[in-house]
Amino acid sequence: MQYLGLNELIKRALEEDIGHADITTQNLIPVDHQSRGIFYAKSPGVVAGVEVSQAVFKYLDPEVKFTIYKEDGSEINPGDIIAEVAGSTATLLTGERAALNFLQHLSGIASKTHAMAAAIKYFKAELVDTRKTTPGLRVLEKYAVAVGGARNHRFGLYDGVMIKDNHIKAVGSIQKAVSTLRIKVPHTVKIEVEVENLDQLQEALESRADIIMLDNMDIETMKKAVEITAGQALLEASGGINESTLVEVAKTGVDFISVGALTHSVTSLDISFNLQ
Amino acid sequence: MQYLGLNELIKRALEEDIGHADITTQNLIPVDHQSRGIFYAKSPGVVAGVEVSQAVFKYLDPEVKFTIYKEDGSEINPGDIIAEVAGSTATLLTGERAALNFLQHLSGIASKTHAMAAAIKYFKAELVDTRKTTPGLRVLEKYAVAVGGARNHRFGLYDGVMIKDNHIKAVGSIQKAVSTLRIKVPHTVKIEVEVENLDQLQEALESRADIIMLDNMDIETMKKAVEITAGQALLEASGGINESTLVEVAKTGVDFISVGALTHSVTSLDISFNLQ
Amino acid sequence: MQYLGLNELIKRALEEDIGHADITTQNLIPVDHQSRGIFYAKSPGVVAGVEVSQAVFKYLDPEVKFTIYKEDGSEINPGDIIAEVAGSTATLLTGERAALNFLQHLSGIASKTHAMAAAIKYFKAELVDTRKTTPGLRVLEKYAVAVGGARNHRFGLYDGVMIKDNHIKAVGSIQKAVSTLRIKVPHTVKIEVEVENLDQLQEALESRADIIMLDNMDIETMKKAVEITAGQALLEASGGINESTLVEVAKTGVDFISVGALTHSVTSLDISFNLQ
Amino acid sequence: MQYLGLNELIKRALEEDIGHADITTQNLIPVDHQSRGIFYAKSPGVVAGVEVSQAVFKYLDPEVKFTIYKEDGSEINPGDIIAEVAGSTATLLTGERAALNFLQHLSGIASKTHAMAAAIKYFKAELVDTRKTTPGLRVLEKYAVAVGGARNHRFGLYDGVMIKDNHIKAVGSIQKAVSTLRIKVPHTVKIEVEVENLDQLQEALESRADIIMLDNMDIETMKKAVEITAGQALLEASGGINESTLVEVAKTGVDFISVGALTHSVTSLDISFNLQ
Amino acid sequence: MQYLGLNELIKRALEEDIGHADITTQNLIPVDHQSRGIFYAKSPGVVAGVEVSQAVFKYLDPEVKFTIYKEDGSEINPGDIIAEVAGSTATLLTGERAALNFLQHLSGIASKTHAMAAAIKYFKAELVDTRKTTPGLRVLEKYAVAVGGARNHRFGLYDGVMIKDNHIKAVGSIQKAVSTLRIKVPHTVKIEVEVENLDQLQEALESRADIIMLDNMDIETMKKAVEITAGQALLEASGGINESTLVEVAKTGVDFISVGALTHSVTSLDISFNLQ
Amino acid sequence: MQYLGLNELIKRALEEDIGHADITTQNLIPVDHQSRGIFYAKSPGVVAGVEVSQAVFKYLDPEVKFTIYKEDGSEINPGDIIAEVAGSTATLLTGERAALNFLQHLSGIASKTHAMAAAIKYFKAELVDTRKTTPGLRVLEKYAVAVGGARNHRFGLYDGVMIKDNHIKAVGSIQKAVSTLRIKVPHTVKIEVEVENLDQLQEALESRADIIMLDNMDIETMKKAVEITAGQALLEASGGINESTLVEVAKTGVDFISVGALTHSVTSLDISFNLQ
Repeated sequence: MQYLGLNELIKRALEEDIGHADITTQNLIPVDHQSRGIFYAKSPGVVAGVEVSQAVFKYLDPEVKFTIYKEDGSEINPGDIIAEVAGSTATLLTGERAALNFLQHLSGIASKTHAMAAAIKYFKAELVDTRKTTPGLRVLEKYAVAVGGARNHRFGLYDGVMIKDNHIKAVGSIQKAVSTLRIKVPHTVKIEVEVENLDQLQEALESRADIIMLDNMDIETMKKAVEITAGQALLEASGGINESTLVEVAKTGVDFISVGALTHSVTSLDISFNLQ
Repeated sequence: MQYLGLNELIKRALEEDIGHADITTQNLIPVDHQSRGIFYAKSPGVVAGVEVSQAVFKYLDPEVKFTIYKEDGSEINPGDIIAEVAGSTATLLTGERAALNFLQHLSGIASKTHAMAAAIKYFKAELVDTRKTTPGLRVLEKYAVAVGGARNHRFGLYDGVMIKDNHIKAVGSIQKAVSTLRIKVPHTVKIEVEVENLDQLQEALESRADIIMLDNMDIETMKKAVEITAGQALLEASGGINESTLVEVAKTGVDFISVGALTHSVTSLDISFNLQ
Repeated sequence: MQYLGLNELIKRALEEDIGHADITTQNLIPVDHQSRGIFYAKSPGVVAGVEVSQAVFKYLDPEVKFTIYKEDGSEINPGDIIAEVAGSTATLLTGERAALNFLQHLSGIASKTHAMAAAIKYFKAELVDTRKTTPGLRVLEKYAVAVGGARNHRFGLYDGVMIKDNHIKAVGSIQKAVSTLRIKVPHTVKIEVEVENLDQLQEALESRADIIMLDNMDIETMKKAVEITAGQALLEASGGINESTLVEVAKTGVDFISVGALTHSVTSLDISFNLQ
Repeated sequence: MQYLGLNELIKRALEEDIGHADITTQNLIPVDHQSRGIFYAKSPGVVAGVEVSQAVFKYLDPEVKFTIYKEDGSEINPGDIIAEVAGSTATLLTGERAALNFLQHLSGIASKTHAMAAAIKYFKAELVDTRKTTPGLRVLEKYAVAVGGARNHRFGLYDGVMIKDNHIKAVGSIQKAVSTLRIKVPHTVKIEVEVENLDQLQEALESRADIIMLDNMDIETMKKAVEITAGQALLEASGGINESTLVEVAKTGVDFISVGALTHSVTSLDISFNLQ
Repeated sequence: MQYLGLNELIKRALEEDIGHADITTQNLIPVDHQSRGIFYAKSPGVVAGVEVSQAVFKYLDPEVKFTIYKEDGSEINPGDIIAEVAGSTATLLTGERAALNFLQHLSGIASKTHAMAAAIKYFKAELVDTRKTTPGLRVLEKYAVAVGGARNHRFGLYDGVMIKDNHIKAVGSIQKAVSTLRIKVPHTVKIEVEVENLDQLQEALESRADIIMLDNMDIETMKKAVEITAGQALLEASGGINESTLVEVAKTGVDFISVGALTHSVTSLDISFNLQ
Repeated sequence: MQYLGLNELIKRALEEDIGHADITTQNLIPVDHQSRGIFYAKSPGVVAGVEVSQAVFKYLDPEVKFTIYKEDGSEINPGDIIAEVAGSTATLLTGERAALNFLQHLSGIASKTHAMAAAIKYFKAELVDTRKTTPGLRVLEKYAVAVGGARNHRFGLYDGVMIKDNHIKAVGSIQKAVSTLRIKVPHTVKIEVEVENLDQLQEALESRADIIMLDNMDIETMKKAVEITAGQALLEASGGINESTLVEVAKTGVDFISVGALTHSVTSLDISFNLQ
């Protein structure tokens, strides 16, 4: 992955953990003591963030050797060695937790995403993420979603238009909102409108929105929305969709299903680090 | 809460969401359009982060009025209004998601913590957190743990000594590790040693460690550890403890139970924002 | 304008000008000396950046009163007063040059844009900017373009896809490039392809690109491109278009005309500041 | 050039262009695809900024090989290859525009400076720049002026004293302003006074100013000023001097001619980048 | 030493010294001119900061070779060569002062600390530092104290509890302050109480404080305090202790003696840099 | 004082002291507890940094009221109240040490400067500072020197030329160094040359240096240097001058005496803070 902000993120993670010094390690481990350590899986899932973990150690000490055995996107099982790191024992012990915090969190996202994406892989619908991400980690979390096999929705308020209920209220109508934005935003971004019922859907279609989000609709209404739309716009289902409702939603024929829980409710993947 | 780094965190959260501009809102909402919006609960839990949410809006626009109805630490139920924000509609719409991302994540932590702390409130054992936090959010997440009713463990590698297995290997013995650190680290911090069995416990006691972490011990062994220790050191149980094993561990008589999942595996609390 | 990075930009502009101190003013002007100063036009044009100038003085000293007489977008003539600033004489003298450097540069862009946009205002074609901006000033310069009456193209490499000659080479064909990106980038951004001749145009149309950039085509070829395209994609003319060729290009019927010189070759608008 | 702030400038230029990712390149170009590209001139001029361009690519990827064929200060003609860059195709495509934005802007300044300096090279007068620079780029722009063959005036308000009309008003007289500053500012900087007529010149000479700026004087008055001054101070002509008036001003015998347009009104030099 | 913030500190030191450029060196020394220079002692003392000096030159130019002859903690005498640096003459001349400013200041601290620690080395009492450090240099100054042979007290308000007079006033009693904090702060930090007389000492002992600071007590009172305490808490003497009173204080039998002057009143160690 | 970088300095000072939290105060002092505190002198001297101390508290909490009784530059005696601060007790306790660290250090510099400047006030020679300042504090320390009654030398390598021995070696001769720089550096800065004997002085005079530094000369040689120079250049005495040699040096008739110890060897002024 190429991400300009990565080192800044790593710096902050290390600073909040190390502060003025790792007082245990610094006072205990001789400067020239060398070790090898491995990251290994303790539960099954999909790896994401192994390069980030590598960058954590490299940030502390460019001399460290980091060997990746499971690239991001690999499925792993308990016992699998994900990566090995060799170098100064002090660096390994000081960097271990920060590296794991990234790796376990991102792998948690990739694993959950992978499971949900797999569940609908024979449907047209694509699983997409949302802006419900952990503050400061948007780019990495969306990266983990992609690694897990889903697709990224817009990254922020700047690279896609989403007209929500509240925008419509302030402006008067979907029609007016879409036509205003159509001539003001860069012609390179699409316009998406959030609708809550079939009347609004109709209005959105007439205003020629590029994408229409069906917000918290029941399955029957979604089906009708798909029929009515008939390919005139892309349809995105959204609102509290989870593992148990996902397939049913996919069956309605929508183009995209967005799931906030991919990034806002994550179970860390169980990965450990051991010196050899 | 007083936290010097808060505005920096908020800045980053807003920057990653807004980028060069909120192109929907900026092009749609008249500059002088005013609104009121409320944050309200959609599931039960404990609030944490409402002041952070306030700071998000204030960062964007100091003119915004933010009224808190449920202070951090309050228990809430579906429908409860947590806070109200009034001011420029554009500010409200642009700041909403960043504010919610903080509020829902931190409230998720406080809620989980509250439930686990409640389960052992009649035992001596105190629930504590770990360094398994989301990169960049350590201080806020530990704050949410405290709000939820548990106690904070050391914040990082700088404010407490923890001698782990790997440190012991590099140094030779628990005895040597403790005595080395006893004269080198500031006399204001305590020394904790991680042990895996009763022999190591014995050695740790002889080395006069202040705190001994019982790592991944079974219940019976923990009980014996408590007996053997007999108040000579504080005892902390650790390692994969969850809702179903928590009470049993508390019954052993340990002083502290540390649970990484309080911060590494969080379900976002369901909170919404609506313009009125 | 709402721009999160504005204060950072102002800070840097002031730091590079003031350094450790404005040694003339600080050693000469009594701390409590008050003045009023005006910004006035010395040549005709369109104002952009007056709020930025205000922010420069506010950054130095929040007590300063800044009154705007000509909002961004106003047409001005020699002698027109754009804004007045009152407060500490030292602040006025220290901030003057940084404020003017922003105001004159941005007004230069807005004025040039305004003239070019006016020249084609009765044609369908819209004038758009490019990524050929001054390093560090992208957002402000694009803002000045919008103020001047043109439309913004994508802001960077992140909010729109542009497949250039070099991308095509590396990937094999326009068809392959478009279809690869169609399933990988967020569904909220459009896909633009740069073509150099009518064969490539045909391929781009078949690949269902959303926007096609006609790169350095002569007028006759552009006309044919418009005919062939027949509304199947948006067409953007690009490549060395200037004041003397603009109208001719607009006559071809393209949808957009992008002009790098709007931001890369700017004549500062002549504006002065005088204490009263 | 040695400039401590260069990497920070490059970081900002890349961040504003790349944002969260170059979505075209990242999704299209295989990670191991390698290329060579050249920067070549499309119009005649003087190169400035080629090391900056090199630093842009190195910032993205230290592995890139960058070969400079035309050092800063070289005169170039259409077709001349300025530099070659070889390495990861993705890096080349992602960094190209930021590198060009620096190189074309700075070369534009050097080229204009070179032409103006050449026009007066047989006169005593030296061409100097001003503080009318693009916000954030002061050091690089002044560097380009030097590369183009002119001399730098003070860099900011901190490394030279300039007593302007407004300072004099606040303080009462040139005499008082000069004598006050003479004992307060570091003895390592000179004192310059701006005068508008011969009476003020006389007063400035009596106050023993080191440098006197003749502000917006006509040619005849400047000549008299040179006579009167007779080497007692350095004389600097200033105020709206351009290509057509430059030589005449030089003929008056002043020591320096300062021209704001060297940096505030720049035509980008036409340079392209092509993969081979 | 491992200190994450070091490069940031060095960057600021260089920026404040070099600003836009070292105008003497840059305009005088040919780019390819090479030299060797040495740092040598002109007065006796203990070296601290030689690695920091090395990092200063490396920051400017990674090609520089830096050879350390006297590691931090070495005792030196006039004429001793501390380190040698070889590389670009311009780098050496530009970096010399910043490197010396660190090296002389930190060596001044180490030397003073060494002398004071030596004076009490046969007593139980350990010399410790305080929070009375130069703003921005806390970590380096505390490092120099450790290098000089004393021990570090808490680094800041975050890694140790110190209940002062003012805290006690606000809370009512030592007893209440200690018991409140005992259950609120991480169990990994100790609790220290500042007392001014023997009554307060008694109260502190009863409240089971871990450490008790005897603030500005006379020698006789301190002796009684040691007797009364009889090992129930660690005792720290504090308050205006200097070279002439140090030994007498040590004789009282306290565990720690804290001396602010170690860092707040430092005589720079005389070290010079010479090109060979 | 106006200093753009002040808040950044204060932020760092507070961050290094407070870290994640002031765990004593935050857990002990009720949020709404209010207090008043005073800063008072415990030894005689000259105040510098009282506005900086004010800014420390304002940074933590803009609501704090800070009243200055002794402006910077005031002479103070034991018992004098320098300033009073009123507001949240927690803010006062948390900010106290950082505020004192600035105030005591800067007042230490001003007091020492004042004493030395007073010693030579009836001589022509002016006392000036050097670049031997504490890393990161250059601007504040030079400010304190000015407050104490001496004059500032150049601030850094950017605002004055100083040709040292090593420069001369690399370039061949004083004559060549001066003439090279005379046409390359901005005409707004003066050129100073460091000489070690009267031959070099002669050469420096012939090269028309503006300022000549007499480095480590004995008193007799300095006297001769003054005679020889006879006003053709400014003369600066430098090199290990201290309280006991100062007057003798002043008597030689030099124009400036630079003393590094003003900033590199400072005894903190004894100032205390007490809640009322």
